[in-house]
Amino acid sequence: MKKVAVIMGSASDLPVIEKAIRTLKDMDVPHEVHIYSAHRTPEEAHAFSASARENGFGVIIAAAGMAAHLAGSLAANTTLPVIGIPMKSTAFANGMDALLSTVQMPSGIPVATVAVDGAVNAALLACEILAVTDDALAARLAARRSADTQKVLAANADCERQYNG
Amino acid sequence: MKKVAVIMGSASDLPVIEKAIRTLKDMDVPHEVHIYSAHRTPEEAHAFSASARENGFGVIIAAAGMAAHLAGSLAANTTLPVIGIPMKSTAFANGMDALLSTVQMPSGIPVATVAVDGAVNAALLACEILAVTDDALAARLAARRSADTQKVLAANADCERQYNG
Amino acid sequence: MKKVAVIMGSASDLPVIEKAIRTLKDMDVPHEVHIYSAHRTPEEAHAFSASARENGFGVIIAAAGMAAHLAGSLAANTTLPVIGIPMKSTAFANGMDALLSTVQMPSGIPVATVAVDGAVNAALLACEILAVTDDALAARLAARRSADTQKVLAANADCERQYNG
Amino acid sequence: MKKVAVIMGSASDLPVIEKAIRTLKDMDVPHEVHIYSAHRTPEEAHAFSASARENGFGVIIAAAGMAAHLAGSLAANTTLPVIGIPMKSTAFANGMDALLSTVQMPSGIPVATVAVDGAVNAALLACEILAVTDDALAARLAARRSADTQKVLAANADCERQYNG
Amino acid sequence: MKKVAVIMGSASDLPVIEKAIRTLKDMDVPHEVHIYSAHRTPEEAHAFSASARENGFGVIIAAAGMAAHLAGSLAANTTLPVIGIPMKSTAFANGMDALLSTVQMPSGIPVATVAVDGAVNAALLACEILAVTDDALAARLAARRSADTQKVLAANADCERQYNG
Amino acid sequence: MKKVAVIMGSASDLPVIEKAIRTLKDMDVPHEVHIYSAHRTPEEAHAFSASARENGFGVIIAAAGMAAHLAGSLAANTTLPVIGIPMKSTAFANGMDALLSTVQMPSGIPVATVAVDGAVNAALLACEILAVTDDALAARLAARRSADTQKVLAANADCERQYNG
Amino acid sequence: MKKVAVIMGSASDLPVIEKAIRTLKDMDVPHEVHIYSAHRTPEEAHAFSASARENGFGVIIAAAGMAAHLAGSLAANTTLPVIGIPMKSTAFANGMDALLSTVQMPSGIPVATVAVDGAVNAALLACEILAVTDDALAARLAARRSADTQKVLAANADCERQYNG
Amino acid sequence: MKKVAVIMGSASDLPVIEKAIRTLKDMDVPHEVHIYSAHRTPEEAHAFSASARENGFGVIIAAAGMAAHLAGSLAANTTLPVIGIPMKSTAFANGMDALLSTVQMPSGIPVATVAVDGAVNAALLACEILAVTDDALAARLAARRSADTQKVLAANADCERQYNG
Repeated sequence: MKKVAVIMGSASDLPVIEKAIRTLKDMDVPHEVHIYSAHRTPEEAHAFSASARENGFGVIIAAAGMAAHLAGSLAANTTLPVIGIPMKSTAFANGMDALLSTVQMPSGIPVATVAVDGAVNAALLACEILAVTDDALAARLAARRSADTQKVLAANADCERQYNG
Repeated sequence: MKKVAVIMGSASDLPVIEKAIRTLKDMDVPHEVHIYSAHRTPEEAHAFSASARENGFGVIIAAAGMAAHLAGSLAANTTLPVIGIPMKSTAFANGMDALLSTVQMPSGIPVATVAVDGAVNAALLACEILAVTDDALAARLAARRSADTQKVLAANADCERQYNG
Repeated sequence: MKKVAVIMGSASDLPVIEKAIRTLKDMDVPHEVHIYSAHRTPEEAHAFSASARENGFGVIIAAAGMAAHLAGSLAANTTLPVIGIPMKSTAFANGMDALLSTVQMPSGIPVATVAVDGAVNAALLACEILAVTDDALAARLAARRSADTQKVLAANADCERQYNG
Repeated sequence: MKKVAVIMGSASDLPVIEKAIRTLKDMDVPHEVHIYSAHRTPEEAHAFSASARENGFGVIIAAAGMAAHLAGSLAANTTLPVIGIPMKSTAFANGMDALLSTVQMPSGIPVATVAVDGAVNAALLACEILAVTDDALAARLAARRSADTQKVLAANADCERQYNG
Repeated sequence: MKKVAVIMGSASDLPVIEKAIRTLKDMDVPHEVHIYSAHRTPEEAHAFSASARENGFGVIIAAAGMAAHLAGSLAANTTLPVIGIPMKSTAFANGMDALLSTVQMPSGIPVATVAVDGAVNAALLACEILAVTDDALAARLAARRSADTQKVLAANADCERQYNG
Repeated sequence: MKKVAVIMGSASDLPVIEKAIRTLKDMDVPHEVHIYSAHRTPEEAHAFSASARENGFGVIIAAAGMAAHLAGSLAANTTLPVIGIPMKSTAFANGMDALLSTVQMPSGIPVATVAVDGAVNAALLACEILAVTDDALAARLAARRSADTQKVLAANADCERQYNG
Repeated sequence: MKKVAVIMGSASDLPVIEKAIRTLKDMDVPHEVHIYSAHRTPEEAHAFSASARENGFGVIIAAAGMAAHLAGSLAANTTLPVIGIPMKSTAFANGMDALLSTVQMPSGIPVATVAVDGAVNAALLACEILAVTDDALAARLAARRSADTQKVLAANADCERQYNG
Repeated sequence: MKKVAVIMGSASDLPVIEKAIRTLKDMDVPHEVHIYSAHRTPEEAHAFSASARENGFGVIIAAAGMAAHLAGSLAANTTLPVIGIPMKSTAFANGMDALLSTVQMPSGIPVATVAVDGAVNAALLACEILAVTDDALAARLAARRSADTQKVLAANADCERQYNG
């Protein structure tokens, strides 16, 4: 299977990004984790994404906050799908800066943006992308959906017992 | 090759969405176009996305405005990657309503969101997803990138002639 | 009397939604509480709202956060009035995402939206709707208004004693 | 049948509000139209809403822009359901001022808020409220929904012919 | 001297509003404090402002949060200057709802709006208004300004000693 | 009677500000109009406001757009009440920049802010301030209010004839 | 004198950026104009800024819209001061996306941000930077300021004649 | 070397501004720190910036919150480059008021704006400006950049060891 790259702009993003890593593990998807900064290590970031396809990656997840250029800057050097996680790393407008910096990409260089701090969904989206041609992974995704559904149904059952007599 | 579904919530979205359709044609990617509304034809929307994988689709693009539920509601019924285009269909905050309604999906059901009215990028992202396992399509994407680069370089050459004497 | 359905998207909404439940109890209005998710249990949500009228419901209250599709998605399957409570369930813009996702419904499918986290008002609005043809309930609503007025007058009396000598 | 009151803050709101009036006519719901301003004719506004229930009204629709106090100020004097339409009457943030002034009502006095300039939905919501206890009106609402669905299906058929060959 | 009325929508506003009261005391300006709600005690609010001029008031300060109608609703019933304090009483957008509901008044009924939670400035503005024709009060305001200036100069002196050696 | 100063930051503000001038004329209030810029003519602005009280002014109206410092900078040099009109002079967020730059003044230096482009209300607020101790002007303001009320009542009468048959 | 580089992300930015070019010409400051895109020609952009200092540049002006990464990405490869102009190139929130993407740079890599579409100020800021050690240029800047002041004074004189009789 | 002035509007800004002071010390750049308020000590602020160039300053850094006029008001009296730090000094929109009040300067008077609370970047930008003609300082800036790069590479190495086995 192609690997998923999880790139974050700073070690301080790890507490949120660990949810993405755990989700990829849960889904049994091979992955690598790196810290590259669009502004502090632009050459390493560039080198990574320019060679990602030939190095066996299928999807790149990029997490950054504030004027979040990381996802877009990785996307500029690859035609692999790049998923952007806008990080609420500062309090400013609770991540609006990172959201707009990630999603409003100019025509030609898409970034697949998920919710602010949406690390789990970034990982699931990466799995969905790999599962387009991987039926076993698609089945694992479907099973996870069913489990999520069961959790809501169980919570509903509890709730109905408590409130509806 | 898997097909790309282009779903829009209303016929009034066509002027923008035609750019996505043209991009898919340019990239020689098979696709189908439908108008399904999350609110006015929920059953057709549900039926389409629930059977999309078995019907040969690999990616779903969904475009909607205002309280844009279409992408999320299609995503709830499939584990295929769903790309959301927030449409500036009303003047309210120039599409902020559609952007937040599309991107802020709860954990478990990702939507790959592109820029407001970002139809070309939605199509390119769909191509990138299919190209993860399709080297010929990856080559066509790379060629398009090169062509885009050449256009900027040509504009730059014009600009330098005009201003830098 | 017709029943009020109180639907929330997640058990984590309960601390806020309990204020709606208590208000309905205080007003002696029959109600049921359920947890259905627009995205994780779309079929149960659909089934509930499609049969709500014939099952004796008169109003549906729906609470959800982030890209809050629950109210709109219930409204798409019923012509009963649906009241939406945008939940501040994430910190993003303190509920602006949920507010716009709930209120900016397209023409044809209204959602009666109350304030962010406005659980008490959602319950009172449901009572007002049932009271259109129920004079006894209208009287209880009027009595509650009077009690609210008395509380403000009492607070004012305290305040005047303290500050106006 | 109880009547619906359509109140607007200024004659300049009529071009948008006429869609609400036409919708009520289409649904065969008795209604009255008035211009009352929360700030310029507060006594008339107060008198109207304080006597609305005894005068045979079941629902009040109130449309206003800017610091839109009209719906809330009518709601303060009645326990009838009051529907607020935030009007984009100035260019400021395209109606964000009116939306927040209408929807963010304090606990005790709900306003059922629809989308900015959402005149059709305000009328439909009023019909839904009256239809809670009026099966004939409920049937007309369901028929309108079906017609809306048919329009989307017809547009989809056109679209499929054009694009899917 | 004319009196200043300090009106707040709820007792919960007192911790912020006490700064206005203390400022009026410091400036030796006669004042009264009341709790009136635009929505819960509309008649008392109306009666107060309609008779404020004849009761010896020169300025009204009104503080309210959320869909803050209090200042505008008092202004509708008097031609005395009304100063609005938007209260950050809920977390929503940190008071943006109250700010827009207070400041965006329609033509004809001004509200003199100060900063979110700007209780001290509301009191000083009231003093400035009364000081237009009261030279002694104008002198006290000027003295307070000088004292504020001296505080900044003293802080600057400390700062220069610490940092500029 | 004290005079009202109408200061604008640029001649381009005149089309909006003429409404303030006309309102002052209508109310028979003496006034002067000047163009001073907080940034381009800071000394003239400073000199004007520092001597405004002794030159017979009672109120200063200041209109500016973008990072609108004019009102605050005039207020820093006088204890006369200063009314700020945030101008929508650029398209950015339709005047949100000017609104926040005008209203969010620090403690000690209030600016009485009116709505974006609220020139008429700025003039009326200036009249209300002067009318605190001028019963004849108060009577003219009350008469204008009555005339405004009559206009709404006349529009309502038209509307009722047209729609309520 | 060191040169100023004016870099724009797209030829479509020229109508606004020409004001910066004209200002640099007016101030007699040597400059070069280029079109480089952070995403479409990342290598050219990188090469330009990495060698800008040795090629005789003293300041770089960078203009881009949407998720405006150009200024930050040039800044990542040089320690020359980089001035960012957020372009209102799409209608989304009138340039809020470009403003936040430009100004909210992470610690270590500053971008000197001017107003949305603030091309003249970007050029003047570049001149101010070069004038720190160039007294002749400082004198030209001072002369321009004086001329601006004279224009406001002349406008004021016109205005006073017209309105103050 | 020219000096850098660090001006803040209030002593309460010191905890954030100390990062700027430390950065200037680290870069061995001479500097002075002052507290001047645009509104409380306008004359001192004016005097400082009007004489800053002749007093040996090359750059002015100005930090202020709310309706942050300090940077613009200093810029109005000098042609030295002025760097503005918008301070998140109140909770309102987490500094959006200060950002817009600082960055949206009118044509003619630029302010080089950095991120909200961006004290380190303000200091680095000041160093970059002085380094345009100071190769030794440019070398120190480059060394600091390298050190920042090394820190990210080290964090990446840790991260790779932990996650990539």
